[in-house]
Amino acid sequence: MPQTSPVRTAKNFCEIPTQRPDTPILDRVDSPADLKGLSCDELLQLADELREFLLYSTGVSGGHFGANLGVVELTIALHTVLNAPKDKLVWDVGHQAYAHKVLTGRRERLPSIRAKDGLTAFPERTESEYDTFGVGHSSTSISAALGMSLAARLRGDDSRVVAVIGDGAMTGGMAFEAMNDAVQQNADLTVVLNDNDMSISQAIGGFSRHLAKLWQRGLAMDIDKHGNILMTKRKISTDDRRVRHYLHMANDAFGDFSGKLPSKLGDKLSETIGSLLGKNAPSAPLPDKIAKKLADKLFADNLFKAIGFTYLGPFDGHDLPKLLTVFERAKQLKGAVLIHVHTVKGKGFLPAEADPIGYHAIGKLPKSAKCDNVPAAAQAQPAKKYSDIFGEWLCDTAYAQPNLTAITPAMCEGSGMVGFAAKFPERFFDVAIAEQHAVTLAAGMATNGIKPVVAIYSTFLQRGYDQLIHDVALQNLDVTFAIDRAGLVGEDGATHAGVFDLAFMRCVPNMLIAAPSDEHECYHLLNACYAYQGVAAVRYPRGQGVGRTIDKDSDERFEIGKARVAWRSDNWQNARTKLAICAFGTRLHDALAAAKRLASEGLANEDVAVCVADMRWVKPLDSALLDAWLDDGVTHIATVEEHQIAGGAGSAVSEYVAQADKLVRVRHLGIGDEFVAHASHAEQLKACGLDEDGIYRSLERFIKS
Amino acid sequence: MPQTSPVRTAKNFCEIPTQRPDTPILDRVDSPADLKGLSCDELLQLADELREFLLYSTGVSGGHFGANLGVVELTIALHTVLNAPKDKLVWDVGHQAYAHKVLTGRRERLPSIRAKDGLTAFPERTESEYDTFGVGHSSTSISAALGMSLAARLRGDDSRVVAVIGDGAMTGGMAFEAMNDAVQQNADLTVVLNDNDMSISQAIGGFSRHLAKLWQRGLAMDIDKHGNILMTKRKISTDDRRVRHYLHMANDAFGDFSGKLPSKLGDKLSETIGSLLGKNAPSAPLPDKIAKKLADKLFADNLFKAIGFTYLGPFDGHDLPKLLTVFERAKQLKGAVLIHVHTVKGKGFLPAEADPIGYHAIGKLPKSAKCDNVPAAAQAQPAKKYSDIFGEWLCDTAYAQPNLTAITPAMCEGSGMVGFAAKFPERFFDVAIAEQHAVTLAAGMATNGIKPVVAIYSTFLQRGYDQLIHDVALQNLDVTFAIDRAGLVGEDGATHAGVFDLAFMRCVPNMLIAAPSDEHECYHLLNACYAYQGVAAVRYPRGQGVGRTIDKDSDERFEIGKARVAWRSDNWQNARTKLAICAFGTRLHDALAAAKRLASEGLANEDVAVCVADMRWVKPLDSALLDAWLDDGVTHIATVEEHQIAGGAGSAVSEYVAQADKLVRVRHLGIGDEFVAHASHAEQLKACGLDEDGIYRSLERFIKS
Repeated sequence: MPQTSPVRTAKNFCEIPTQRPDTPILDRVDSPADLKGLSCDELLQLADELREFLLYSTGVSGGHFGANLGVVELTIALHTVLNAPKDKLVWDVGHQAYAHKVLTGRRERLPSIRAKDGLTAFPERTESEYDTFGVGHSSTSISAALGMSLAARLRGDDSRVVAVIGDGAMTGGMAFEAMNDAVQQNADLTVVLNDNDMSISQAIGGFSRHLAKLWQRGLAMDIDKHGNILMTKRKISTDDRRVRHYLHMANDAFGDFSGKLPSKLGDKLSETIGSLLGKNAPSAPLPDKIAKKLADKLFADNLFKAIGFTYLGPFDGHDLPKLLTVFERAKQLKGAVLIHVHTVKGKGFLPAEADPIGYHAIGKLPKSAKCDNVPAAAQAQPAKKYSDIFGEWLCDTAYAQPNLTAITPAMCEGSGMVGFAAKFPERFFDVAIAEQHAVTLAAGMATNGIKPVVAIYSTFLQRGYDQLIHDVALQNLDVTFAIDRAGLVGEDGATHAGVFDLAFMRCVPNMLIAAPSDEHECYHLLNACYAYQGVAAVRYPRGQGVGRTIDKDSDERFEIGKARVAWRSDNWQNARTKLAICAFGTRLHDALAAAKRLASEGLANEDVAVCVADMRWVKPLDSALLDAWLDDGVTHIATVEEHQIAGGAGSAVSEYVAQADKLVRVRHLGIGDEFVAHASHAEQLKACGLDEDGIYRSLERFIKS
Repeated sequence: MPQTSPVRTAKNFCEIPTQRPDTPILDRVDSPADLKGLSCDELLQLADELREFLLYSTGVSGGHFGANLGVVELTIALHTVLNAPKDKLVWDVGHQAYAHKVLTGRRERLPSIRAKDGLTAFPERTESEYDTFGVGHSSTSISAALGMSLAARLRGDDSRVVAVIGDGAMTGGMAFEAMNDAVQQNADLTVVLNDNDMSISQAIGGFSRHLAKLWQRGLAMDIDKHGNILMTKRKISTDDRRVRHYLHMANDAFGDFSGKLPSKLGDKLSETIGSLLGKNAPSAPLPDKIAKKLADKLFADNLFKAIGFTYLGPFDGHDLPKLLTVFERAKQLKGAVLIHVHTVKGKGFLPAEADPIGYHAIGKLPKSAKCDNVPAAAQAQPAKKYSDIFGEWLCDTAYAQPNLTAITPAMCEGSGMVGFAAKFPERFFDVAIAEQHAVTLAAGMATNGIKPVVAIYSTFLQRGYDQLIHDVALQNLDVTFAIDRAGLVGEDGATHAGVFDLAFMRCVPNMLIAAPSDEHECYHLLNACYAYQGVAAVRYPRGQGVGRTIDKDSDERFEIGKARVAWRSDNWQNARTKLAICAFGTRLHDALAAAKRLASEGLANEDVAVCVADMRWVKPLDSALLDAWLDDGVTHIATVEEHQIAGGAGSAVSEYVAQADKLVRVRHLGIGDEFVAHASHAEQLKACGLDEDGIYRSLERFIKS
């Protein structure tokens, strides 16, 4: 059965509407059940309306952009064919679930996404019965869906379970672990592989190349109405940007193999690919015979089939009628099935199609904005971001240190490494979404005369924790960790908060941990950690610093384990009550302001002196400073950090005081025993009592109690 | 080029020698350089000598057994062809590195393996320059080796890098992450896939089946002397246990496909496989035509080629001449190369070949032992192991709770789940070495009406940490964790110690953590955690309990967050100095003994009262007990735990005391900021001051300071 062309193609947009568009069909869809009665033409119109609505809504709220536009047809097709919430749909990562939220009763709330008390940026179980699994970190969907499928089997429930996972997320090892197990369990499970444009702009790894080759074959494993699987040809036209890219890849791959082919075939292939790639080549389908030969000779191995999945595809993920047919027919298949669809990130919004990385996420739309000034990356920022400071430090250090390498698990832009990657491409390693591998790769390099810097978000280091302990710290290898997004992360919410790192790293022997309080400190603590021969981590937050200029030539010493006294009240020597505040990281500034207010207002009439230290190091702690304080008659020690109280930096202070056997009151300010929901960063700090007012009140209570 | 048969086959043994065997050639090998001058015949004799020496040595020391016997030829071949230490050899997991240790200058020290101050059970960088990477946890070798290869490339060093990884370890997701990246980096890297018998006895997952199918094809991708790759036929004979197994698998696979094949071919295949499997079928090679048809129709896809590796094999991993040829020739290949060799776990020791699981590791050989009573699993044990208590609890609970499932990442035996797996096969899930997946699979089940128990070693939970936070705790899903091997683990050493779990779990909201002190407590705390609707973990140690009988019908309450006062000195009411001891987990007994001695000896003449609590719960802490103590005039609180002090249970006590704003001296007993090397468990406790004497001395110092 040859694959049909779409009845009509999706509407294209080039501006983000600032007014709520008219969406007559979408307005009638309050749950997936409302899709069932719609004709194919109506569904196609719905796709246009949904896309325009997403453009409008994301302009209001900001948020993930390209991935959501890419799955409009896929989401409609899945919700039309499935019977959610009985059937379970699991979105990997979940930043592509906006369309899903709209079709499952949350249309009018979508513009509130990411705001305090608004919708979450990711599927969340407490938000809707259609959100079967809370996500945010990648590569979990197949495991979760397999769990649901096995649970359903045990309970005699015939629900279907479908996981939707992107090609990027599939490089995460746990996706492979889950595929392996799905076959072992002989589970009924459908995995939709959403292979989007990122495998073009960011062709990372053997897996990604494999997908590109599968697409390039021009063949698809299709399914007929009886559930039989058959190979069909797909029309490939050279006027498609993707196809041209794949042809280039095929050409490269072919170069490697041509010597192995019979010379006549080799020549013919070269000539054909060459002519297809010619500058003025007319739009033309790839000749059948060539496609077949390519398929047979070069691209015969299918990873999913090898591991034991039934494989269907690849299909055009914007061909809604085709998707409806395939998903409906695939219901007949038992066991583990993978359906490979190809989508375009930013589909239907031309500026995003042209710049999928810039349009991964966008900020809120300024009132008068046109589409060409929207990418988040392009928006002007008042002070330097910590990630940019890291990037600057990395480049500066790389010039001086030829053995420096930098590793990122797919966060080149987010971690501020674009400049480094351009300047030092041979020393830059983007290993794809693969945190475990990233850490052990660094360990391997460190055994062989290279000093790597692992740039990783705090929340993602949780994925490389065993490797940090086992492959780096236990062997005391010389690796520096630059831990971004440490602390609360605002609108990204609890799934991305970096509030456990101090607890999980502090217990690991051989580790240094620094927590800089501003831009200048961050730069120099990165220096100090890199200069150290062993495992050292610098944790710094998401977003901007306080605007302090970095004095790179400063001769200030940043000695390991030494804090800096930031301020002391004038009555320090003689007061009977002395409050010492250990501030860890960027909470220093609010702690300082609170302490000064306390000294001049709240406790002005009492015999209380206050001192604030920028601790700089969580490990080793500045025990000399603590000893000096205790000798000096300090009666109260407060600790302030943007981290869980349990096991955090404050806890280290308590442990030291216990070991020193001194009687002193200690109070820990930090995040209590709860996950902090999405809101602005300022709102989150306020909720945790970690803004200036909150710190002020806690300190006052502490002294007066 | 047809594959040659080995010149001679390996010698078989059926007893473990109790006397050091004569090993004239082996005695001359003090480093890999000594292998270079040996003839092929001498190398074959060396293999026999090495195998016999390993048998003898492991009989003396105990330790890993089967895997080491399986890689004798592989190790000799690699060290003959490579130039270590310039060339880098990375062993995955490392429990198969005994032969490597023998050939790299540690022959005479091998019998000291695992003992205090003896050789470590795994490769360790500080032990030898030939141990390029410290291992112990699986699936890290490709990442580490890739790091070494990339480092060498950057430094202009032409060292070769070879990783040796077992089929079991390759199911760990990070191996896949690393393969993906190796292709992306276009790194020169050889991966030797040591596909051993475990893929037969434990055919877990699609990956394992894939390997079996590759073997069954009867075809190998070989390499000629010019480096060209060509397909060759391998003789398959039906008198090989492995081949028969694969034929069965082929038969099963074929059953699924036969409807899709032309009927004549289908019939012919059925008939042939049937006759080959016939009870009295003569030893016969698989007919070429059949093998080819099977290969083409069923097993066309190769996972390693799909991901972009050059694939060679599968080869017989005991055919030393063949291995020498292949490894030598493969030096010509650039890029990422995978060489698939098939070995037999326990090779050459017949009882182990017959029972590879029982002979995975063995205990020390009793003086008069014969080979048939050696498996560690078969040795009589004085008291019940905690893993067996868990297994018993699991079965008991499963009878009453139809929604209970149990998940293990490839630790069915170690976690005491053999009985459960036999009794409740449909509720038992061995997901292979895949800790990340294991945790999220449980989360998925918990969303769909099933209550899973994840049985996992503390040290391996480090691999599923992000999933614990993100997929389970953040969603507050109803999952119970049974955490085995918590605390120090004796001879397995630092790589397997479970001494971070309290710190990394305590900071996670929504978690309960219980730490039972003996068998009875363990059973009932498992009950309490399972009864709780949410995330709860019970941590218990390796090895035996204290011999306490479990009273399953006890009406004692095990309320969440409630401790049990275990003992109080008679002078509790009136003493001026009061020492309260919070004992967490099995350190209770030594703490109790130390406290009683202290009251009757060390502090008998002073006005000091002592109280010891079995805290039972690390989270939530029994704050009511702490409050009562503080109200009661307690002046000193000591905490005792088998865990790092940093962030541990004691730290939780300090945090509570700080929050309660009471002045009391606190002292934490636990493991200091260092990794604890392998030794007996008792030796380790002594070294950490956590045996009775150590606790006694610390408490005495605490009170007298």
